[in-house]
Amino acid sequence: MRAHDRIIPLHPRRAHVTGALPPPPEGSFASDNAAGVAPQVMAALAEANHGPALAYGDDPWTAAATAALRAQLDAPAEVLLCWGGTGANVVGLATVVQPWQSVICVDSAHIVVDECGAPARFTGASITAVPNVDGKLRPEALDPYLHWLGTEHHPQPGVVSISQVTEMGTVYTVPEIGALCDAAHGHGLVVHLDGARIANALVACGTDLATMVRDTGVDVMTFGLTKNGAMYGEAVVYLRPELAASARYVRKQAGQLPSKARFVAAQITALLADDLWLDHARHANRLAGLLADRAGAVEGVDIARAPEANAVFAHLPAAAIAPLQEWSFFWPWDLERSQVRWMTSFASTEADVERFAAGVSAHLDAVPPA
Amino acid sequence: MRAHDRIIPLHPRRAHVTGALPPPPEGSFASDNAAGVAPQVMAALAEANHGPALAYGDDPWTAAATAALRAQLDAPAEVLLCWGGTGANVVGLATVVQPWQSVICVDSAHIVVDECGAPARFTGASITAVPNVDGKLRPEALDPYLHWLGTEHHPQPGVVSISQVTEMGTVYTVPEIGALCDAAHGHGLVVHLDGARIANALVACGTDLATMVRDTGVDVMTFGLTKNGAMYGEAVVYLRPELAASARYVRKQAGQLPSKARFVAAQITALLADDLWLDHARHANRLAGLLADRAGAVEGVDIARAPEANAVFAHLPAAAIAPLQEWSFFWPWDLERSQVRWMTSFASTEADVERFAAGVSAHLDAVPPA
Amino acid sequence: MRAHDRIIPLHPRRAHVTGALPPPPEGSFASDNAAGVAPQVMAALAEANHGPALAYGDDPWTAAATAALRAQLDAPAEVLLCWGGTGANVVGLATVVQPWQSVICVDSAHIVVDECGAPARFTGASITAVPNVDGKLRPEALDPYLHWLGTEHHPQPGVVSISQVTEMGTVYTVPEIGALCDAAHGHGLVVHLDGARIANALVACGTDLATMVRDTGVDVMTFGLTKNGAMYGEAVVYLRPELAASARYVRKQAGQLPSKARFVAAQITALLADDLWLDHARHANRLAGLLADRAGAVEGVDIARAPEANAVFAHLPAAAIAPLQEWSFFWPWDLERSQVRWMTSFASTEADVERFAAGVSAHLDAVPPA
Amino acid sequence: MRAHDRIIPLHPRRAHVTGALPPPPEGSFASDNAAGVAPQVMAALAEANHGPALAYGDDPWTAAATAALRAQLDAPAEVLLCWGGTGANVVGLATVVQPWQSVICVDSAHIVVDECGAPARFTGASITAVPNVDGKLRPEALDPYLHWLGTEHHPQPGVVSISQVTEMGTVYTVPEIGALCDAAHGHGLVVHLDGARIANALVACGTDLATMVRDTGVDVMTFGLTKNGAMYGEAVVYLRPELAASARYVRKQAGQLPSKARFVAAQITALLADDLWLDHARHANRLAGLLADRAGAVEGVDIARAPEANAVFAHLPAAAIAPLQEWSFFWPWDLERSQVRWMTSFASTEADVERFAAGVSAHLDAVPPA
Repeated sequence: MRAHDRIIPLHPRRAHVTGALPPPPEGSFASDNAAGVAPQVMAALAEANHGPALAYGDDPWTAAATAALRAQLDAPAEVLLCWGGTGANVVGLATVVQPWQSVICVDSAHIVVDECGAPARFTGASITAVPNVDGKLRPEALDPYLHWLGTEHHPQPGVVSISQVTEMGTVYTVPEIGALCDAAHGHGLVVHLDGARIANALVACGTDLATMVRDTGVDVMTFGLTKNGAMYGEAVVYLRPELAASARYVRKQAGQLPSKARFVAAQITALLADDLWLDHARHANRLAGLLADRAGAVEGVDIARAPEANAVFAHLPAAAIAPLQEWSFFWPWDLERSQVRWMTSFASTEADVERFAAGVSAHLDAVPPA
Repeated sequence: MRAHDRIIPLHPRRAHVTGALPPPPEGSFASDNAAGVAPQVMAALAEANHGPALAYGDDPWTAAATAALRAQLDAPAEVLLCWGGTGANVVGLATVVQPWQSVICVDSAHIVVDECGAPARFTGASITAVPNVDGKLRPEALDPYLHWLGTEHHPQPGVVSISQVTEMGTVYTVPEIGALCDAAHGHGLVVHLDGARIANALVACGTDLATMVRDTGVDVMTFGLTKNGAMYGEAVVYLRPELAASARYVRKQAGQLPSKARFVAAQITALLADDLWLDHARHANRLAGLLADRAGAVEGVDIARAPEANAVFAHLPAAAIAPLQEWSFFWPWDLERSQVRWMTSFASTEADVERFAAGVSAHLDAVPPA
Repeated sequence: MRAHDRIIPLHPRRAHVTGALPPPPEGSFASDNAAGVAPQVMAALAEANHGPALAYGDDPWTAAATAALRAQLDAPAEVLLCWGGTGANVVGLATVVQPWQSVICVDSAHIVVDECGAPARFTGASITAVPNVDGKLRPEALDPYLHWLGTEHHPQPGVVSISQVTEMGTVYTVPEIGALCDAAHGHGLVVHLDGARIANALVACGTDLATMVRDTGVDVMTFGLTKNGAMYGEAVVYLRPELAASARYVRKQAGQLPSKARFVAAQITALLADDLWLDHARHANRLAGLLADRAGAVEGVDIARAPEANAVFAHLPAAAIAPLQEWSFFWPWDLERSQVRWMTSFASTEADVERFAAGVSAHLDAVPPA
Repeated sequence: MRAHDRIIPLHPRRAHVTGALPPPPEGSFASDNAAGVAPQVMAALAEANHGPALAYGDDPWTAAATAALRAQLDAPAEVLLCWGGTGANVVGLATVVQPWQSVICVDSAHIVVDECGAPARFTGASITAVPNVDGKLRPEALDPYLHWLGTEHHPQPGVVSISQVTEMGTVYTVPEIGALCDAAHGHGLVVHLDGARIANALVACGTDLATMVRDTGVDVMTFGLTKNGAMYGEAVVYLRPELAASARYVRKQAGQLPSKARFVAAQITALLADDLWLDHARHANRLAGLLADRAGAVEGVDIARAPEANAVFAHLPAAAIAPLQEWSFFWPWDLERSQVRWMTSFASTEADVERFAAGVSAHLDAVPPA
């Protein structure tokens, strides 16, 4: 069970590093939202700050960002800019689900674990969380709930929601998404995709956005910006525009309509220009591989699975975790299994990876024998 | 996965009964709410219909019913009469949970499966449904979620909800409830008990209400009437009256405040008088045992577990289920495993049990060999 | 401002009745839900209690009640039985409104004042309460909000809700309802009618249900039973069945699906048979007129307006109100204007009207001169 | 009734300007959120973009901004950064109200008119909107609802919410706020202040934040940044920290927790430094006065009331409104009364005021005589 909690329980056999420690990395591997803002994004924000513009999206920057996203999809999608990831998920889900319906997802989903129940409260719908192995929802997991359709006693399955990249760091293949969409659509369900790290998934799969979400049949998605190098802002994209009929009201009611919208829009345009967003993701994914290699080579470190995107899950000796966090912070993931998570971002550097691996090595040397 | 759906899929090797069938039972074994109303309850309703009475519980019948329930508990509990079981669960839960909290329960719970998401919608809270084996929640199932306490990203565990009798027909022992309450209270969680069939559990355990819910530490419960022989009505009982500070507003807002409340109250008083409610439950439980014996003796019937209260879960040859339902209706439970549920009530008769077992036998004789 | 509060503030010049008081009436004039249950309804409940019946409305009683209501409307309406009035209003509204829409009604409406915010909480929609004079909403009151249509910042007008009889005791004429429906429909709004006292309105207008709600264009209504002589139960009637596509899920989620539904249904059938419901209403209305005449003839009593249905609003000397309530309880309505409400029911008697008027006279005689 | 709608109905006697028009102002007077971002804020954003920082507020920028706000209040307030104004209002209100309670405010309030029902949906509470004259709520407006306290049928008054500056452009005096807080607190109600334009109110009153909100007794407020020159972000400030016990969960669940929080925090610090926020407000208020003078001097323009802060409400000949909007956009306010709203901001210039007044004059000259 993952834990956001920074307070690491004291461990009876806590490692004490006696020798000199290497300097910690300049950027931690705590999360991809611990990074700052890409310089191209900063420049775009400054550029957008010339003169007045009507608020709430009635401005040329918003029109340009919408066009840029539609170009990526090669489809007349509806695009709504929002403040943040939780809010964008809430807007997307609330547009397509009724309160007497359910949203089926895995129990590790961000919407279940990491949003303090935001979608549940705002939509009133049941969130049906299916046990997961690797963070992925599979078509057969829907079957038990599809029997509920048509019977008033049961929440009515209405939406399937997946995260790409998943919270376990895995990446759905394009055929996997397609199979899930087919299963959902076959029973009238809508497919929602939380794409907080969609760019990382695209480069991991070596495909493009249209192939991954338009051609597979995804109906509505959160298009993530913040973890890709933006300051703030996410977009909800409705691949089937007819689903968006009420979306503007839902967004406003969810408190997700940016007033000076041009500044969200300018960031999207900057990230999409010249494939900057994909370069960011490619860099982060590559460094995650490097980090898994370097840290995995340390005696006592067990990389849970080869990183598919920009997250590295590692098992460490329990006694080493707290001292290592104090040296350079990261989040524990499953303390009962001594598992931690390291994440790379567009701003991570090779030098920091090497420093971090060296620090891991130094701390593990200090762990008393079991 | 249980199914309320009456439409049984056609089976390729559906059994055809060729000989004469025995007459079906007069009362089906579909559910304990398919029974009518106990004569003593009918008499009490007529008795209460003399002259006017202020609405909404400001009447002597409501005072008497409250006193009778408090006497059962030997505690100054707060008692609020409600219309039905789903509503009573909603009122009890909504009084003690905040929207940013979660209610932890098993995934077979009535509040998850059989209330169309009513508690989720009304409370706005996350319903955290834990996989179940036998319908019971165990203290260790709470552990992963207790790590979430104090971290704003996660729904905050606030309530543990159990059903007694469980939806799987099992019965928590008194020590089991006590251990769960201790675990919950140790982390500041409140314990809610859905007692739609609490009387059946009491007689199954050979104990009394005070021992089972007051002494164990249950904080709030739904006290079930309808399945025990009432026409309608349930009560929410707050064992810790301080938890009920806002309960009257919650009940009214949930649409669960009966206007002519005396008629709910009169039914409670009638059922509690002379232990009628326990007699009803004892009768139902005994006939479930008899039904398991008689039907279980039929070749091809596999009783899933010895009935602990008034539900019998049986595996039947798939081809026999639909014809048997047509002869005397009951609900399928898990069609993928050819499991069905038969329930007895206060109104079930030994003659009907015998008739039903004979019918099961006649139908199974007609099943073609596998 | 009406008050349900029984606690009447002490008045400095409280009247002290020194002479002998007449005996109070057997039935109070507190409310039409302080009455008991009509004998024909009690008989129908007993009659329905023969043998088992599937729960949740899959029974012949429910089919018969539905047919009886459709016959009154001469229309293929969808009929859903519910527990109570607040719940039925919630179900009807929640079926036709989205959370980002608003329900426009007068600020004296039951859904605003008397349901502890039940529709607001369950639907999430804005309840736009327009100041009222006589309890009626007029078409021009919609105009300011119709400007909001299409602009994401504003709650989108979605439903117009009226009460017939209104909470101020007034009765909409058929043309008034028709004009309001036309105005609403002209802008795509749905019309909801809270008919807790619809029978009283029908006899007041000398018309029938089809003329008043089908021909005018009402889309969905609460059909009231409890105040007409039932023990419990109300029905939600969808005049446009296509609006009811999700209604069964909404009802279940709202905790308003009666399990032993036959007992609600049997009451409807009993009340509709031989126009019993209209006889009840006619009787109550007539006695309200008589009460207004008799009490209005007492020096110091000012009948606010000639009763149109079964409510009498009267201004009394402030000092007389509390003693009169102690003698025979009724609810204050607007204590700042010394206004009280007296209601008659199917069970009121002429003798009680005469007794009550005599008591009013005795108490007013005791009021000290101003 | 105000209208966000840009589409101005065609007017039969629309003015046609025949002569040469002056150039429109560089910055419109549409709204203070049509302005861009202050240069000091842009610099602070760039400055904050150095290296990594933990997300969600666990960073030194957030600590500094919190300290700066506390210094303004000279009080140990709880400060929670949020994305936008609607979200901040939702968070503040949802922290202090229960669903069975009501929020009392005027019917022109932003939370009623301009947030698409966001507080209603998220809190589930009743929003009791009192008719307003000048945008202000007065203590006696609470009286009718205070009678509801303690009676389960009525929404329970829980919160009083005011806007400072009001949506009508008026400013509460310090004693007015104090009197309202006293009235609310006397009955256990909490006072919420929507301070989207609090700086404009402070300079209008010539007082400081501590005097206006701490000393008067305001319990929780939205501290506005965006309309004062920020790019995005608002803060919820709990003057009574004990009210904030659940605030972090509410904020997260409301989708209002910024991930890269340092960038909101840096803007607060920049605006509070050297009283920049007050300078911005003083400038905007002064230019509103100038605009009222200049435009009010045009024949045919009627300034509704002397501007108290940065909004000018003016009546224009109906035929002139649409052409003038086309020349330089602004929002209509009450088209039925030919009233429009012009707003100044920190970025408005005297030259633009003069240009705009000249344009008003040119357009009004073209209006055909009535």
